[in-house]
Amino acid sequence: MTTTAPAVTLQPPYFAVIFTSVRTAADPAGYAVTADRMVELARQQHGFLGIESARGADGLGITVSYWESEEAIRAWHDEAEHRLAQAAGRQKWYAAFQLRVCRVERAYGLNVG
Amino acid sequence: MTTTAPAVTLQPPYFAVIFTSVRTAADPAGYAVTADRMVELARQQHGFLGIESARGADGLGITVSYWESEEAIRAWHDEAEHRLAQAAGRQKWYAAFQLRVCRVERAYGLNVG
Repeated sequence: MTTTAPAVTLQPPYFAVIFTSVRTAADPAGYAVTADRMVELARQQHGFLGIESARGADGLGITVSYWESEEAIRAWHDEAEHRLAQAAGRQKWYAAFQLRVCRVERAYGLNVG
Repeated sequence: MTTTAPAVTLQPPYFAVIFTSVRTAADPAGYAVTADRMVELARQQHGFLGIESARGADGLGITVSYWESEEAIRAWHDEAEHRLAQAAGRQKWYAAFQLRVCRVERAYGLNVG
């Protein structure tokens, strides 16, 4: 999955969805295809700002997507192809997950070269 | 680094710090020791709720820590040993990072078995 960090000049407030997950062993190929497709589809949504994703050797994955508004997050949640992926995720791909919708209050960083 | 997911029964609102980073090649052993120590120290702070961390094969790391209040986040930011680690991070361990302080508005999840 190719991820894009939000522009570092982005000024709060904006919104973040923190999705933490533990995968099952089931259907890794299907999962990978759908995960890539969901990133592609998210990028096309109104109000999408960026996405960052990492999965460690222990199996814990964290994906954070950034959005202009809570309305944009709700619209993405309800997008038809995304709904099908959510159902497949609950049925076979995830042993556990947590999803948190957040308002980003302040942000700062370091970017070298 | 051993991470602990927040209790799934935790009810919003609470607060999250999303820390995304790209490591330099410098001092991996020193970084690992300090990263583990910071998790240990964070757990001892008032208002700490949990921490989740992942670093992918592409080098992007995401650590999310959860807190009862913004005051708890500020106190952790200003903790003396943590300040030393922050300075070392800026000087040698991180090529880039972004830190975002967020208010968790709503949360849900799936936990199997």
